[in-house]
Amino acid sequence: MTAGRRLLVRDLAQLATPAGAGAPLRGPSLGKVDLVKDAYVLIEAGRITAVGRMRDLPALGDDVQELDGRGLCAVPGLVDCHTHPAFGGDRVEEFSVRAAGASYEELHAAGGGILSTVRATREAGEEGIARAVERHRGWMLRQGTTTWEGKSGYGLDRETELASLRAVAAAGGAPTWLGAHAVPPEFEDADAYLDFALAEVLPEAARIAEAADVFLERGAFDAGQARHYLTACRDAGLALRLHGDQFTEAGAIPLALELGARSVDHLEATGSDGARALAAADVTAVLLPASALFLNRPMPPARALVDAGAAIALATDFNPGSAFCESLPLVCGLAATQLGLAPAEALAACTVNAAHVLGRAEEVGRTAPGYAADIVLLDAPDWRYLAYHLGGDLVHTVLVRGDPTRLR
Amino acid sequence: MTAGRRLLVRDLAQLATPAGAGAPLRGPSLGKVDLVKDAYVLIEAGRITAVGRMRDLPALGDDVQELDGRGLCAVPGLVDCHTHPAFGGDRVEEFSVRAAGASYEELHAAGGGILSTVRATREAGEEGIARAVERHRGWMLRQGTTTWEGKSGYGLDRETELASLRAVAAAGGAPTWLGAHAVPPEFEDADAYLDFALAEVLPEAARIAEAADVFLERGAFDAGQARHYLTACRDAGLALRLHGDQFTEAGAIPLALELGARSVDHLEATGSDGARALAAADVTAVLLPASALFLNRPMPPARALVDAGAAIALATDFNPGSAFCESLPLVCGLAATQLGLAPAEALAACTVNAAHVLGRAEEVGRTAPGYAADIVLLDAPDWRYLAYHLGGDLVHTVLVRGDPTRLR
Repeated sequence: MTAGRRLLVRDLAQLATPAGAGAPLRGPSLGKVDLVKDAYVLIEAGRITAVGRMRDLPALGDDVQELDGRGLCAVPGLVDCHTHPAFGGDRVEEFSVRAAGASYEELHAAGGGILSTVRATREAGEEGIARAVERHRGWMLRQGTTTWEGKSGYGLDRETELASLRAVAAAGGAPTWLGAHAVPPEFEDADAYLDFALAEVLPEAARIAEAADVFLERGAFDAGQARHYLTACRDAGLALRLHGDQFTEAGAIPLALELGARSVDHLEATGSDGARALAAADVTAVLLPASALFLNRPMPPARALVDAGAAIALATDFNPGSAFCESLPLVCGLAATQLGLAPAEALAACTVNAAHVLGRAEEVGRTAPGYAADIVLLDAPDWRYLAYHLGGDLVHTVLVRGDPTRLR
Repeated sequence: MTAGRRLLVRDLAQLATPAGAGAPLRGPSLGKVDLVKDAYVLIEAGRITAVGRMRDLPALGDDVQELDGRGLCAVPGLVDCHTHPAFGGDRVEEFSVRAAGASYEELHAAGGGILSTVRATREAGEEGIARAVERHRGWMLRQGTTTWEGKSGYGLDRETELASLRAVAAAGGAPTWLGAHAVPPEFEDADAYLDFALAEVLPEAARIAEAADVFLERGAFDAGQARHYLTACRDAGLALRLHGDQFTEAGAIPLALELGARSVDHLEATGSDGARALAAADVTAVLLPASALFLNRPMPPARALVDAGAAIALATDFNPGSAFCESLPLVCGLAATQLGLAPAEALAACTVNAAHVLGRAEEVGRTAPGYAADIVLLDAPDWRYLAYHLGGDLVHTVLVRGDPTRLR
């Protein structure tokens, strides 16, 4: 949309946005949605200037473009706060073998897993990585994702890690340096690799990335190594994230609290102590049900976390090995059917709360005056089809800063 | 495509089709796929006349239209052999309440469930039902479904049941009379309702429908009532289907064998005796993992059924209450991640074996000479993305009898 031009999205069946102000939303506030039926949204210079009922629409000048919202519902542009889009190749062979019975950890131990993608990503090179990230960004947009985080972590050498971060930034994502994803084959052990990464990669990574992340898990990095890595990253100005409690409780939540991390992500193995600790902290629990589904493992204890008062977000975990899924609408469906979350809780978790994880909650995550005009129009009579229409092709149009892309 | 004109789909990355001839495929045969890389398909008058490698492509005259298959993979048009597309309204409110904790059976007992859709479907009337079925048929096509069964069962009075069957037939589906879905409120008990349905609805239903179906379950119809209903339907010339073993084993498999039914569908509660019985019979086990996911209930024992030698098919169970999901690609993803089926097994289960359930396996279900040119082109470098790319928007083009519809 031309800067300054106004756009009126009119006659929407519904407009739904997480209620209240501020972020993150917790407890009963997480389930509250402001709902306007027969609604309009007025956009100017890429920002929302007004929303309301059609019958209250004020007279507008004739410089206003119109977009017909009949039969559509508007929700905020979705925010995916945990993706791994910078990789070469795929893992469809491993997926097919695992479908017939091999476990993820067995495949990883047998030389499949993350390191097979590291090889393919290094081979892809800077241009190949940039093309892959651009393709994946397009996939996300088709599913209604307008703000997204993208991690490196399939390079694990200086050149490929930095190329991954640059590719995410160039495609409009929020880059996270997942330097501590796995130990690459050219290093003897995790400590030696981390020494290299912090000395040789961090200085430049900190100029591109917004955050740093670590895979704290049996077979990856332990709590001491994660503390060493994250402390150095924090000192370099990066916000902190952790992959934790995916297969085992290995100290990720206490470490996240100790270091003031923005989030701890996965939590499939988190028990009641972990939930209580998160409830008392300003660390968001990022839940990734598509990953649990993809690996056929237990779902994270979402209901217990919300009921304890923890702030949660939902994300896809898009990656080639454990969640080849970029669809936040499907994640909302999983949240409603597998995690015991109401559609309103799921919506807040992948909009305002996910934006909070990315430090963007004042900019995106609500369809309300003052926010960026990132809006998804769903081909549905009720906005809750976002969770209800499982696997449905329901994203009709996506507006990014007021600029509409029609998808069906 | 104009009758007689030839269409060449060229330069396909891959063409994959269930191997062998005949149907249904069982045991090790279920997992075999004929794969051609760098492939072409030649179509004439809506039928496939040749498939092969590009380097073996014979010289063709200049009356041949071409379709560029670069970057795409061809699989047979998907066959959905179990859907309930003829309904009014939706159940998004019930879905949202259930997400917060109420069980399906509790909602059903509280006056939600099937009977709330019966009210909405009767209110929709013949035109409303026809519009709904047409809309749902469009959704299925966008997910690659080119052959589908559609059940009545939300009318449960003469007029609405017949209108539902006519709507399915008019939209190109295979109509199944699910006259025994539930007992409508105007009848005291199941026996009185069945007397009415068999006397007043069956004679005309048998002229429109291809098959009859019954919901054999605690709270719906028992085995004796199902036998009474199905026997009358068989005598009227209809093929037989059963909803069985969804929540409890209530005799559906023995009854299906006794009556020579084409399928017994659901089977989430089926034990090893049931699997052995099906292995020895010409009754296909139709598995509906999207329904199990939607209701957060146990998955059907797919691996045990296949390993025992039973013929299985996969379907969506698309309906507003327990599976608002028309996506067979998502069902294939669930098959690979939740049911322990390899992508090749999933493909055969929702093509050739599903076609067998509908009595159409000589016509559709394979991408091979002599079959109808119903073909799905996937935007993927490997056909197994059908299962791997979970929730992905990967259906690029669908050909129905050689006529292509581009979807992205």
